[in-house]
Amino acid sequence: MEEKLALMIEAAGENSERALAKLISHVEDRKTGWKDIMKTIYAKTGRTCVIGVTGSPGAGKSSLVGEFAKRLGDRGYTIGIIAVDPSSPFSGGAVLGDRIRMRDISTYQNIFIRSMATRGMLGGLCQAARDVVRIMDFAGKDIVIIETVGVGQDEIEVVSAADYVMLVTYPGGGDSVQAIKAGVMEIGDLFVVNKCDREGADIIVSEISAMLDLSTETAAKIPPVIKTSAFTKEGIDELMDILSEFIQKKKKGPHYQKDHVRQEVISILETEMVSIIKERITGNGNMEKELELILSGKSDPYSIADKLMKRFTVIKNVEEKRKGDFQ
Amino acid sequence: MEEKLALMIEAAGENSERALAKLISHVEDRKTGWKDIMKTIYAKTGRTCVIGVTGSPGAGKSSLVGEFAKRLGDRGYTIGIIAVDPSSPFSGGAVLGDRIRMRDISTYQNIFIRSMATRGMLGGLCQAARDVVRIMDFAGKDIVIIETVGVGQDEIEVVSAADYVMLVTYPGGGDSVQAIKAGVMEIGDLFVVNKCDREGADIIVSEISAMLDLSTETAAKIPPVIKTSAFTKEGIDELMDILSEFIQKKKKGPHYQKDHVRQEVISILETEMVSIIKERITGNGNMEKELELILSGKSDPYSIADKLMKRFTVIKNVEEKRKGDFQ
Repeated sequence: MEEKLALMIEAAGENSERALAKLISHVEDRKTGWKDIMKTIYAKTGRTCVIGVTGSPGAGKSSLVGEFAKRLGDRGYTIGIIAVDPSSPFSGGAVLGDRIRMRDISTYQNIFIRSMATRGMLGGLCQAARDVVRIMDFAGKDIVIIETVGVGQDEIEVVSAADYVMLVTYPGGGDSVQAIKAGVMEIGDLFVVNKCDREGADIIVSEISAMLDLSTETAAKIPPVIKTSAFTKEGIDELMDILSEFIQKKKKGPHYQKDHVRQEVISILETEMVSIIKERITGNGNMEKELELILSGKSDPYSIADKLMKRFTVIKNVEEKRKGDFQ
Repeated sequence: MEEKLALMIEAAGENSERALAKLISHVEDRKTGWKDIMKTIYAKTGRTCVIGVTGSPGAGKSSLVGEFAKRLGDRGYTIGIIAVDPSSPFSGGAVLGDRIRMRDISTYQNIFIRSMATRGMLGGLCQAARDVVRIMDFAGKDIVIIETVGVGQDEIEVVSAADYVMLVTYPGGGDSVQAIKAGVMEIGDLFVVNKCDREGADIIVSEISAMLDLSTETAAKIPPVIKTSAFTKEGIDELMDILSEFIQKKKKGPHYQKDHVRQEVISILETEMVSIIKERITGNGNMEKELELILSGKSDPYSIADKLMKRFTVIKNVEEKRKGDFQ
C-alpha cells in the first residue's frame, strides 16, 4: 500500500476527523488502493453499535436522530452519523431543512456526520453504506447511526445491515401507518411515533401495537412502541433508556454475526459485478452496434445480453452448467 | 421452445387473460424457457404506452389509478396495471385497503391487474417489472400503468423505465412535499396533488410549482402541476386530457428509444449476474469455510470476495486488465 494511505489510516485511527473524512472519500470514490484500506482496517472493526433509522418521509427522523445523538454524545460516546440522502439535481442534492438541522448538530464535539448520495449508486448503495460504517468503526466511533430519507426497498436493505433498527412514523392524517407497513415492519426492533405533540399519535401507537401483536409469535418478542417529540422532548428519556440497554448488550456480544458477514460478502461481489458490467461490458460505447440491432428489429435485449455475456469466459462456463436456463 | 409455451404465447396474443397471467408467472418464476418467451415476443412489442405512477405512501395513488384506468377503459383502451407491492410477511403481502380497491376495478372488462411483490427481488425488481410490461404489451394492452407503493430508490428506478411519469402527493400536514422532493422530482412529467378536497392543497401546488420554476431551464419544459380528488372527481377531466395527449403522441413516435433499450440490456445483465452470485458463488453452503475464516479473524470480507471471484474465469480476466483497482 502507498505510504500516503497508510498514514491516512493511522491518522484516522488516532481520532483525526480530517483523515477520517478523506479515508471515507477515498473508498467511496473507489480510488486506487481503496480495497487495501478495507482489508487493512477490518481486523480492528466490529466493536461499534450500528443503529439504523428509517420510516416515512416527513416523520422528523433527522431531528430525532439529532436529539438522541446529542444526548449519547453528552454521555461520552463518540458518534458517527450516515445520512443516506437521495440526491437530486433538483433539490441540490439534499432535503434542505434536514441538512440545516444536521449542520447544527455537526458542531457537537462527539458527533461526526457524513452524507451519502444515493443517486447513481443503485445496487451499490448498501455496500457503500457498509464501507462507511466500517471506516467509522475503525476510527473508534462507539455508535454509528444510519438514517435514510425515504423508505424504499434499497433503504430497507441499508438499515437491515444495522444491529438495531428503529422505524419512525408520525401522526400525519392517518396514512402514516401505511408507509411503515409497506414491507418494513418485520425488520423493526423499535417503533417510534414521532411528532407525538400532534393529534392522533395514540391512535397510531394502538394501530402499530395491534399489528405487532397479531404477527409476532411470542409476546416476549414484540418490539416496543414509543411516542416521542423532538420538539417537546416527550419520550426522549424513554428512547435513551432503550438505546442504552441495546448498546450495553451489543458491547458484550460477539463482534460479527455470521449472517451479517455472509450478506456483506454477497453485497461486495454484487457491487463489483455491477460495476464491471457498467464500465467494461456496456459502457464507453461498447454496445452501440448491438443497440442498433435491437432498434432495427434484428435482435432483442435478451439475445444481446446473452451475446455480451459470452464475451466473458465465466459466462460461457455458467451457461454450460446451467443449460436449463440458458437455452 | 416447448410446444406448451408456444401455445401459451399464442393464446396470450389472442386476448386470453388466463394465458397472459400464466405467461407472466412463467417468466417471473424464471421457469425453463422463460428467456425464449421474452426473445420470441420482443419483435411484437413497443406499441404500448407505459405510465409510471409513484409518490408518497398514503397519497391515494391506487384510487387515482383506479379512477383514470376506468375512464381510459371506457374510451376503448385496453389496460394493464402492475402494482409494485412491497410484500411483507407482516401485512400479508399487501397493503390491504389498496388491494381491495384494486380488486374492485379488476372486474372492469378492459382492465388486467397484476401485483408484483418486491420482497426478495432486490436488484431484479426493475427488470422483473420491465418483463411484465413487455408481456402485457405483447398481449395487446394499449396502456400499461406501473404503480409503486413507496417512493424509494428502487421504486424510482422502476417508474423511470416508463414513457411518462406521474408523481402524486397530497395535503398531509405540509410534509408531503418532502417525500416528492427526495430524489424524484426530476423524473416527473406530471405532478398531481391528490386528495385536493383536503385543506392545504393549493399551498402544495404553489410549493411544487415554485420548485419546478427554479429548477427547469426553459419555461416550455416545466411539467404541469394539477389538483385531483378521486373522491369528489375534481381534476380528473383535466388529468384525462393530459394523459390522452401523451397517448396520442406516443402512438405516433418510435417504438423504442435507444436510452431505454440500453438501460434494459444493462438491467438484464445485472439481474443475471446477481442471480449467478446468489445461486452459484455464495449459495448452498458454498462459502461456509470462508465465513469461518472471517469470523475467526483470519480473513476479511473483501479478501474472501476476491477469492470467490477468482474461481470464475472472467474475474481473472477482469483482474488482469484492471490491476489498478484489484491489487
